[in-house]
Amino acid sequence: MGIAATIENPTKPDDAGLNDLVALVADGMTRVNATILSRTGSDVAMIPEVANHLIASGGKRLRPILTLACAQLCGYVDEGGRDGDVKLAASVEFMHTATLLHDDVVDESDMRRGRVAARIKWGNEASVLVGDFLLGQAFRMMVEVGSLKALDILSAAATVIAEGEVMQLAAAKNLETSEEAYLAVIRGKTAELFAAACEVGPVIAQRSQAEQEAARSYGMNLGIAFQLIDDALDYGGTSTDLGKNVGDDFREGKITLPIVLAYRRGSEEERAFWRRTLQRGEIRDDDLAAALATLRRHGTLEETVARARHYGEKAKAALSIFSEGPVRSALLDAVEFCVARAH
Amino acid sequence: MGIAATIENPTKPDDAGLNDLVALVADGMTRVNATILSRTGSDVAMIPEVANHLIASGGKRLRPILTLACAQLCGYVDEGGRDGDVKLAASVEFMHTATLLHDDVVDESDMRRGRVAARIKWGNEASVLVGDFLLGQAFRMMVEVGSLKALDILSAAATVIAEGEVMQLAAAKNLETSEEAYLAVIRGKTAELFAAACEVGPVIAQRSQAEQEAARSYGMNLGIAFQLIDDALDYGGTSTDLGKNVGDDFREGKITLPIVLAYRRGSEEERAFWRRTLQRGEIRDDDLAAALATLRRHGTLEETVARARHYGEKAKAALSIFSEGPVRSALLDAVEFCVARAH
Repeated sequence: MGIAATIENPTKPDDAGLNDLVALVADGMTRVNATILSRTGSDVAMIPEVANHLIASGGKRLRPILTLACAQLCGYVDEGGRDGDVKLAASVEFMHTATLLHDDVVDESDMRRGRVAARIKWGNEASVLVGDFLLGQAFRMMVEVGSLKALDILSAAATVIAEGEVMQLAAAKNLETSEEAYLAVIRGKTAELFAAACEVGPVIAQRSQAEQEAARSYGMNLGIAFQLIDDALDYGGTSTDLGKNVGDDFREGKITLPIVLAYRRGSEEERAFWRRTLQRGEIRDDDLAAALATLRRHGTLEETVARARHYGEKAKAALSIFSEGPVRSALLDAVEFCVARAH
Repeated sequence: MGIAATIENPTKPDDAGLNDLVALVADGMTRVNATILSRTGSDVAMIPEVANHLIASGGKRLRPILTLACAQLCGYVDEGGRDGDVKLAASVEFMHTATLLHDDVVDESDMRRGRVAARIKWGNEASVLVGDFLLGQAFRMMVEVGSLKALDILSAAATVIAEGEVMQLAAAKNLETSEEAYLAVIRGKTAELFAAACEVGPVIAQRSQAEQEAARSYGMNLGIAFQLIDDALDYGGTSTDLGKNVGDDFREGKITLPIVLAYRRGSEEERAFWRRTLQRGEIRDDDLAAALATLRRHGTLEETVARARHYGEKAKAALSIFSEGPVRSALLDAVEFCVARAH
């Protein structure tokens, strides 16, 4: 039996734009959450402790919601009570959680989702190994579902995510990173899992190749938009009200799109500033304010949001082959929600 | 296409007891090695670099050899050129390599297979992410083979291995570890992959449940014997000629069976010695020699080898349901080879 983790408050009340989507998949998400709890259980007590630390700390669970919604959009019927959509959704969340645990080791992060990172509390070892455990459990659930196509999509996603992360590592602190190279990184590290999460919906509903590709395209473009908005939000988005956690990417020397664009069009003096702060990591008290002023002067936060909007439009367009109805509307709203976060 | 790694000298010439087994699967291993090379290829150059560093540095490739041999033992025929045995063998080696990469981060190792550990050369980040990439590739190959049963066995093994590693972490530096608790760790971290590597042979050959269980039992017991001998070898085995690398476990404070047994039957003074050296890591120049003398006085190296021999006998007994022939003989010899390493 082992020890199980507990989940509190998986969906935050301020996610209004997602409300319809959340309501439509509420029953499924209850079963996803129960599955997550039971599958993080282990006789090795440290496993549910570490997994729970991250999983219970929330997040919107956007990826499993997308899996359930895309299956529902395609009329998936759970024949024989195999819980195919629920198990794939839980698998997707486990893959995401494993990635976060491994990322913390990679980034040497101290915080994650507003909590002390697991690696600080239990060490790098535990973060690596519990991530591996969750990946293994994800694959076990996929095998239970029995769809080789879904297994193919999600195992391919696992390699593409790792490639994206390695690309990011290789590009770290490189201010010469091009917009294309940056997009390749976020396609891998973020958008691929959104794409796979959506694609498996029509796959288990046994819908046409065209519908599988459309769901994949929706997820891929939504994922790109989502990451671009995250990158803009890390500098406060287009609002001048700065929320918390502004400047994390700056302090870690991450080269995101607002920086890529600002560096290319910057003066020699500005480039020297970016090299000192982001490449060499020599950051003084007023540097974040100076960085924000420079990004604003070049309008690169607005431009990043505009790029996100472009991908958001592509995501919405991809849904046009599906019949109208509440699920499709809610998926369209989800795009708006993701993009509107930046204001 | 991407960049591919190269493999040199995968089987060392001094592995005489494995010669028959190696010869029987030589054709298959040529294809396994080619598969390993092609599946570590990536446009992200750091991936084949890191993977190659570890894969090309050798090791006996015992696990994929076992997969090929058990498939051959069961008369596996490669219908339609799907290369089922070869792909599963390569998957098993990738799972093993991913574990080694992640272990280096966990153990903070500086050396691996006589080379500088990948984490020292490329950082913890690269070790974690390239391990993740290889795990993803392993699952992709399994999906290509198309056997849900083999997928189930190997994905379950992935979680059990991680559990074993976490158990080891939780038990680290705990001199009160019992022999049973120690066995549970090595069943997970080492023997489970041997068991899965063997079990998938009869599975893809579509042989009976009894034969699947027999192959699994052979692998499990061989894996336990293999690890116990490794643990004895780390203190020079039962020979008084000390080879290289003697004392690594001692310096890292690893609690292995020779220590578990010696601590339980030790005097108060000896226990204080083990606590100072292994628990507190206060190691002086003459301590390794003193540790060896104590282990020899209590005969715990011979005893560890005797335990290994016991599991080796169980491994051999498990093969009795298969028909006599060169493959079965070679698998029996492989047990002898593993146990005889300690002399």
